Amino acid sequence: MARVFNFSAGPATLPLEVLQEAQRNLVDYENCGLSLVEMSHRGKEYDKVHTRAGELVREVMGVPPGYAVLFLGGGATLQFGMVPMNLMEEGGMADYTLSGSWAKKAISDARKIGTVNTVYDGTDTAFTTLPDPDSVKSTAGSAYLHITTNETIEGVQWKQFPRTEAPLVADMSSDIMSRPVPVEHFGLIYAGAQKNLGPAGVTVVIVREDLLERIPGTLPAYLSYGTHAKSDSLYNTPPVFPIYMVKLVLEWILREGGLSAIADHNTRKAAMLYDAIEGSDGFYRCPVDPRFRSEMNVVFRLPSEEMEKQFIQQAAAANMSGLKGHRSVGGVRASIYNAMPQEGVAALVDFMRAFADAQS
Amino acid sequence: MARVFNFSAGPATLPLEVLQEAQRNLVDYENCGLSLVEMSHRGKEYDKVHTRAGELVREVMGVPPGYAVLFLGGGATLQFGMVPMNLMEEGGMADYTLSGSWAKKAISDARKIGTVNTVYDGTDTAFTTLPDPDSVKSTAGSAYLHITTNETIEGVQWKQFPRTEAPLVADMSSDIMSRPVPVEHFGLIYAGAQKNLGPAGVTVVIVREDLLERIPGTLPAYLSYGTHAKSDSLYNTPPVFPIYMVKLVLEWILREGGLSAIADHNTRKAAMLYDAIEGSDGFYRCPVDPRFRSEMNVVFRLPSEEMEKQFIQQAAAANMSGLKGHRSVGGVRASIYNAMPQEGVAALVDFMRAFADAQS
Repeated sequence: MARVFNFSAGPATLPLEVLQEAQRNLVDYENCGLSLVEMSHRGKEYDKVHTRAGELVREVMGVPPGYAVLFLGGGATLQFGMVPMNLMEEGGMADYTLSGSWAKKAISDARKIGTVNTVYDGTDTAFTTLPDPDSVKSTAGSAYLHITTNETIEGVQWKQFPRTEAPLVADMSSDIMSRPVPVEHFGLIYAGAQKNLGPAGVTVVIVREDLLERIPGTLPAYLSYGTHAKSDSLYNTPPVFPIYMVKLVLEWILREGGLSAIADHNTRKAAMLYDAIEGSDGFYRCPVDPRFRSEMNVVFRLPSEEMEKQFIQQAAAANMSGLKGHRSVGGVRASIYNAMPQEGVAALVDFMRAFADAQS
Repeated sequence: MARVFNFSAGPATLPLEVLQEAQRNLVDYENCGLSLVEMSHRGKEYDKVHTRAGELVREVMGVPPGYAVLFLGGGATLQFGMVPMNLMEEGGMADYTLSGSWAKKAISDARKIGTVNTVYDGTDTAFTTLPDPDSVKSTAGSAYLHITTNETIEGVQWKQFPRTEAPLVADMSSDIMSRPVPVEHFGLIYAGAQKNLGPAGVTVVIVREDLLERIPGTLPAYLSYGTHAKSDSLYNTPPVFPIYMVKLVLEWILREGGLSAIADHNTRKAAMLYDAIEGSDGFYRCPVDPRFRSEMNVVFRLPSEEMEKQFIQQAAAANMSGLKGHRSVGGVRASIYNAMPQEGVAALVDFMRAFADAQS
């Protein structure tokens, strides 16, 4: 079977060479006579993988000193709870930007812990735009200000970030490592791996060490960032295989030239798609404000839902999968994370032109 | 490189045929043109894996109707917190048996949520024994009674289980699926996968559905069993690869004849090792009460720490790895989970005899 161009929003396409390396090593890891997933997480082979994965996060993202890098289970969804549990005092207050479906979930969990002050609410625009980052300020007494850097469902993405008095906390699940970001402007960054970093099952958390001092002593061990920071994410058995894959993906990013090169590549791919939409004489329509169009998830509509259905079916038959928009919004969505090759986007653009032509 | 006999306490040895099947499918899953770890967790291919994994847990363990089977991230360590957060009211009370190092961690987390009533405390015996199960009763007003069915570090294992008024909750991380258990006597069972079920990164939770009704509405979404029970563990992206591996391991258990056959096999392997210890004229000593010796983790001492060091080194040179006792207790530990073949145990027994002979 030829390799499919996989436009799935996540879990998402991974670099083929990464999958192949993992495959070679799955039964007999580097001639050790057993699989990495069978080894003690306290042994020297896994230690090398674990340590290198952490170093690579620092190196690829340019994480400055004074930040801890953690690998946790439970996905970004667990972080929706852990962030307020760790950083907001019980009954405290934090600022959130309501930018789409994922921000909504983060807010819902934060409300279980304390008061949420919604400093931006995109509901009226159906989350098709974002605020000017300079207009976003934290409130006096706020524990932090939370943003979702990319909304996979609505296809909006922050291009610049607010500079806030309160620590800036970001859910970067769907665009981490897709472009350089000034980590030093953030108090905490978290990201589920399954878009740009690896398979599902591990979440990267980057947290400024001074914030660890506010963590209440009343949290169960796993739920405290302090537990994991103190033990280099080895307090308990970490998700070995997902972390190993993250290491391989980060090595691939370095081989590709690092985040600047990756960002150029992503900008080019996204432009190809948005240009195809804009150049379609209205056949394809992207509802998103051009200033905030995501370079990761390109959402668009066709003249009718029936045509969207045909589009998705015919694309799948032409070896392009995962193009269905999220069930909550419908339409078409092409997720073009780091590992989607330019040829995949070119193939989709060609298909879009041919499909539109065939309808006229 | 020949395959090593891997006596690691966890992550632990897996059936070779399971690793080989995962390897074959890692790049191109069943000729779909992409890896399972790249596919949407809401697509039909992953759905088949996810659904089948849940069915297999039910089938292999004999889970009766009225129980939910969940697949969560964060390891059993996260469950140490989730169990009291879900089942104990804030400030409530629960009974715990302090049987060893893992029970201690569970208790430490439960104390963050409410009052812990320690109904058995093995500290004085250095956790080398367990109570008569019939003597273990829950306290009036207790939310549940918690046991740790097998302690990997001290090598003790419950052979029968208490019958308690309060729901019985068990951490079965290190002996789940090693023998038949009467699931219907338990309110909740949890187990990290990385001993008998698969690689690290997923935890199985089996919970009686009526207990879901007590869950406080104030928990963040991920931390509530209700969230996962309602959405069949697909509220968020599950740890796809670990769950896939659990499915393959459970299929292997069925091929081996199910839990009765597995239990016979485990009893035979453990007897070989304990017999070798007892038949060594005191060269090897197992500190554990014979009534409660673990069939998963066989701990023993040699006449001196120096000899233990040599034993472990020479065993490694003879292709037997992971025999070092936990750093907190020292000594030797042979973990012989389901996937350790009888030949591995036979090789270790031969090595033990030769090593003892060489010292005399």
